[in-house]
Amino acid sequence: MALVMTAAELQAFLARDFGQVADDFAVERADEAGLALRLRVAGRHLRPGGTVSGPSIFALADVAMYLAILSRIGPVALAVTTNCAIDFMRKPAAGVDLVAEARVLKLGRSLAVGDVLVFSEGQTAPVARAGLTYSIPPAAAKDGA
Amino acid sequence: MALVMTAAELQAFLARDFGQVADDFAVERADEAGLALRLRVAGRHLRPGGTVSGPSIFALADVAMYLAILSRIGPVALAVTTNCAIDFMRKPAAGVDLVAEARVLKLGRSLAVGDVLVFSEGQTAPVARAGLTYSIPPAAAKDGA
Amino acid sequence: MALVMTAAELQAFLARDFGQVADDFAVERADEAGLALRLRVAGRHLRPGGTVSGPSIFALADVAMYLAILSRIGPVALAVTTNCAIDFMRKPAAGVDLVAEARVLKLGRSLAVGDVLVFSEGQTAPVARAGLTYSIPPAAAKDGA
Amino acid sequence: MALVMTAAELQAFLARDFGQVADDFAVERADEAGLALRLRVAGRHLRPGGTVSGPSIFALADVAMYLAILSRIGPVALAVTTNCAIDFMRKPAAGVDLVAEARVLKLGRSLAVGDVLVFSEGQTAPVARAGLTYSIPPAAAKDGA
Repeated sequence: MALVMTAAELQAFLARDFGQVADDFAVERADEAGLALRLRVAGRHLRPGGTVSGPSIFALADVAMYLAILSRIGPVALAVTTNCAIDFMRKPAAGVDLVAEARVLKLGRSLAVGDVLVFSEGQTAPVARAGLTYSIPPAAAKDGA
Repeated sequence: MALVMTAAELQAFLARDFGQVADDFAVERADEAGLALRLRVAGRHLRPGGTVSGPSIFALADVAMYLAILSRIGPVALAVTTNCAIDFMRKPAAGVDLVAEARVLKLGRSLAVGDVLVFSEGQTAPVARAGLTYSIPPAAAKDGA
Repeated sequence: MALVMTAAELQAFLARDFGQVADDFAVERADEAGLALRLRVAGRHLRPGGTVSGPSIFALADVAMYLAILSRIGPVALAVTTNCAIDFMRKPAAGVDLVAEARVLKLGRSLAVGDVLVFSEGQTAPVARAGLTYSIPPAAAKDGA
Repeated sequence: MALVMTAAELQAFLARDFGQVADDFAVERADEAGLALRLRVAGRHLRPGGTVSGPSIFALADVAMYLAILSRIGPVALAVTTNCAIDFMRKPAAGVDLVAEARVLKLGRSLAVGDVLVFSEGQTAPVARAGLTYSIPPAAAKDGA
């Protein structure tokens, strides 16, 4: 699957369309294997005690998959998440960013499916994993997938 | 399953332990059938375009189930979400709060399982549904389940 | 949502299109609230030890949701499961059938979403719960959901 | 994570404890990266039309994860599936076996979590993906996860 948007273009798309939260995320890599997205962990992402909150981890996985799909179909603002199944496996390490690794497993005419692993930076045991499905406007979808 | 915390006690627990986000949520009802939780929708919950964001809906479902479990086992701050499968089915209505209806389906020695329907206030067609699993500290769990 | 197929018509559809497994299942009820489907538990559904196997419970939930959707859109053989998230909560009781209660939460142009509770006959605590998504051929879908 | 059971030992365990269905499955590989399990597709696994049924794919994913966990903790017959979220992405190819690739992402004191990709033999685009959680008897679990 050839890429149609680079990491820099995805970051610019995020800044334009997600103004409010775009600064939370940094696209680290976008290539044929998938996409890596960093959550710049700040106070607003933490639960009391200092752990990154579940909704913040969910948001990271969701945005990572969204951008991985866009890297293949272009800047389609109308793609929407229809399903996410997420396992929270370990407490995030304190004081470091989280990095999500997303891969697209299917890019069909109306649905895109992929999965994401979330890591505390520098650790090999994942904090969370998620499978996500996006509904994509038919006109924007690629054939074959 | 008898309740051990009232709606008011759950609200107070939220205020004490989730200071940062407690004001977002209002416990509307806690009884044997389950728990209803309101998300007071504000600008920080919206995506560009004015729709409530996926992470905000996820947070509502997650907190609703957490409080539904606590209403049965008491104020156990150590319960953690281990799994959530969520379906986003409809765009939330603009300009109204969201209300989650949570029910506990299993309360075991180490795992609690339940599901949640999320509605735009005043609508009957659900915005989202979620199944959630919580891991609970063994000492806090009730028998029987 | 008006029904377009009765319980008897759904049972006949099952017999015609699922010959191999149709006898495993009995449609107990189909109405506006949803559909109840019985698994006539036999030796081939059991794990060693006599418990109904996970795949048999999955099959029951899957067929129940499929028939609940067909009761609303008619005999569309091309609807396919795209996603299922299932929680196994309790061991089924020995020596009794299982009954699934399915409800349709969304019936859109291309996706139908619903959930299912599975019970050992005569028990009130559920054995399993599942959320399922079906992809339905656009021509077959109803408007409005 | 060191392995405590080889592929041959896992196959023998399956034959002893899952007599009824053990012949359906062949352990192709068990190593530190995970486990590969083949479903020898036969008539009883097919839906009318000749496609492998959803419950058969679910069973393959479930058994693959079970054996991947056992390869790390030994022959613990009491491990049970508590949750599975599965995406069905493509129709299996006709006339070939299915192969599941399972990996263990967390092996905790009471829960094990992993994911599975299912392929039609010889194809690179996956038929299905699943995330699964198993509850394991505390005494059998390894430390450190």
